[in-house]
Amino acid sequence: MTNTISIAQFGLGPIGLESLKLAAAKPWANIVGAVDIDPAKIGKDLGDLTGDKNLKGRLVFRSVEDLTAHAKPRVVLHTTVSKFPAAFPQLETLARAGISVVSSCEELLFPQLLNLDLAAKLDTICRDHGARIIGTGVNPGFVMDVLPVCLTGVSRDVRSIKVQRVVNAATRRAPLQKKIGSGLPPEEFRRLFKEGRAGHAGLKESLALIAHCMNWKITDLVETGDAVIADHDIRTQFLEVKKGQTCGLHQYAEAKVNGKVCLTLDIKMYLDAPNPHDAIQIEGEPSLNVVVNGGVAGDHATVAALANTARRILNAPPGLLLMSDLSLPCWS
Amino acid sequence: MTNTISIAQFGLGPIGLESLKLAAAKPWANIVGAVDIDPAKIGKDLGDLTGDKNLKGRLVFRSVEDLTAHAKPRVVLHTTVSKFPAAFPQLETLARAGISVVSSCEELLFPQLLNLDLAAKLDTICRDHGARIIGTGVNPGFVMDVLPVCLTGVSRDVRSIKVQRVVNAATRRAPLQKKIGSGLPPEEFRRLFKEGRAGHAGLKESLALIAHCMNWKITDLVETGDAVIADHDIRTQFLEVKKGQTCGLHQYAEAKVNGKVCLTLDIKMYLDAPNPHDAIQIEGEPSLNVVVNGGVAGDHATVAALANTARRILNAPPGLLLMSDLSLPCWS
Repeated sequence: MTNTISIAQFGLGPIGLESLKLAAAKPWANIVGAVDIDPAKIGKDLGDLTGDKNLKGRLVFRSVEDLTAHAKPRVVLHTTVSKFPAAFPQLETLARAGISVVSSCEELLFPQLLNLDLAAKLDTICRDHGARIIGTGVNPGFVMDVLPVCLTGVSRDVRSIKVQRVVNAATRRAPLQKKIGSGLPPEEFRRLFKEGRAGHAGLKESLALIAHCMNWKITDLVETGDAVIADHDIRTQFLEVKKGQTCGLHQYAEAKVNGKVCLTLDIKMYLDAPNPHDAIQIEGEPSLNVVVNGGVAGDHATVAALANTARRILNAPPGLLLMSDLSLPCWS
Repeated sequence: MTNTISIAQFGLGPIGLESLKLAAAKPWANIVGAVDIDPAKIGKDLGDLTGDKNLKGRLVFRSVEDLTAHAKPRVVLHTTVSKFPAAFPQLETLARAGISVVSSCEELLFPQLLNLDLAAKLDTICRDHGARIIGTGVNPGFVMDVLPVCLTGVSRDVRSIKVQRVVNAATRRAPLQKKIGSGLPPEEFRRLFKEGRAGHAGLKESLALIAHCMNWKITDLVETGDAVIADHDIRTQFLEVKKGQTCGLHQYAEAKVNGKVCLTLDIKMYLDAPNPHDAIQIEGEPSLNVVVNGGVAGDHATVAALANTARRILNAPPGLLLMSDLSLPCWS
């Protein structure tokens, strides 16, 4: 518990900066540097970039190679992209250097779903070089997957799992308000969603992780998404939406096992959503009905999930890991 | 996942029989026998005792030595006593035979709290012989300890944790209705509680497990218990309680860290308790407010927790383990 862990941050966007600052505040962490591709950030001092004077003297490098020539982290907090194939070259370089990674990359929660071969390849590289890689966060990574799985730990039998999440996006950071389509004409949002350029990433991966843990073989997987349309003019800290425009999204995924719907995940993220909450219903023996009143706050919690996983991952065997491979989630 | 695990049941009381039957229904389990000290059960066929014909031919032995002379289980489900020192000789014999144990012994959730030396001794024996031992269940083992800890996995900071559990004991098995003092004059219940002969076992251990996970050093630990008094005549499936008699218990434990109350656990188990539920409040960043509507049903869930842990424990390193050492709870 008293050994410090050398940590670097890969990706210095809003989430990355918060993740870095949180890690820097942990008594068990020693920040050794960061990586970012933004020319405006390369070479900068992390003390200046974050306002945290304890980070003075730690620099931003343009690549993992440049970072490791200077200092070798044991764990990298990785916050760059949502898609696993886009993250792959970054992760591969880290794994080959024997560096473990805790990533917010949404598809990495269950990378086998869309890219089975690539996942197998990365798993082999991790095992060969003693590295552990995991994708986590609050969603995906906790509310709609890890927490429901945890609840089944006291189940004699599980027949179906339903999760609903309602997020009031007006309380969230600017990039999220944009990502959910705020201000777009509904048709435009629908087109972007179809093209995979708008919407919540990771819902199918949450579903696949639960199914994996339940040992359910999915026979059908359906995902739909639509715009939520503003029924009044809305003004947030960051933007304005006129009545009739998109003010958020309603996304839904369900999985069938042998023709029966066993898993449904339903997420609504929109501006001014009333009664934000997370609800989990497990039908089984016993059945369970769990509500997180107010919901688990997205941004704080995502950054926390990354930092809290950085120590735990080192106790797991090398490989491309899933949250169900690690010990019980815990504040660290 | 396809390898079967040879399992034996130690203790054939109501919970032990249910635990055995549940394990017997698992595709990954192969029941090899049972141990009980009741002369009326020794030598009996488990098929006859349980009514499960798949268990025909598996016998009840008087001791672990007799069992292992006949068949060696990899895991024993242990449901005999609540106190760790009473369980110790049984656990020691199993550990020395290299057999792993999942136990409902309440003090075993955090055996270091009351018996630090005995716990260290058992831990060494486990490591020397490749055995894993863990205490689990629904409470202690899940609702008031593991689940709150899991929720802190998305916390940047945790300042305090409060858990309330309200159980309608009228829906529970006869031994529990008796254990909570049903029908006793309140003074009699208070005397028995003081002597440690009535009440819910494991509340202090739940508290100690959370504190351990939060890395909080407890400076004060207080536990209180009182009778809940029937305000009307109550009749359950098993017994009758007159108005004015004890119909259950209200137990409370709190822990201070450096003078500040950081942990409070409050449990009410009484006949006809309205609105049974479990509630977890985490004060921190973000704060979390979680309610299990109806609560997690005790008996079903305890048996499920034992069976679901039997496979997971084998992936952990040998030793006297805590639930926070194992991977994410999961239906198995």
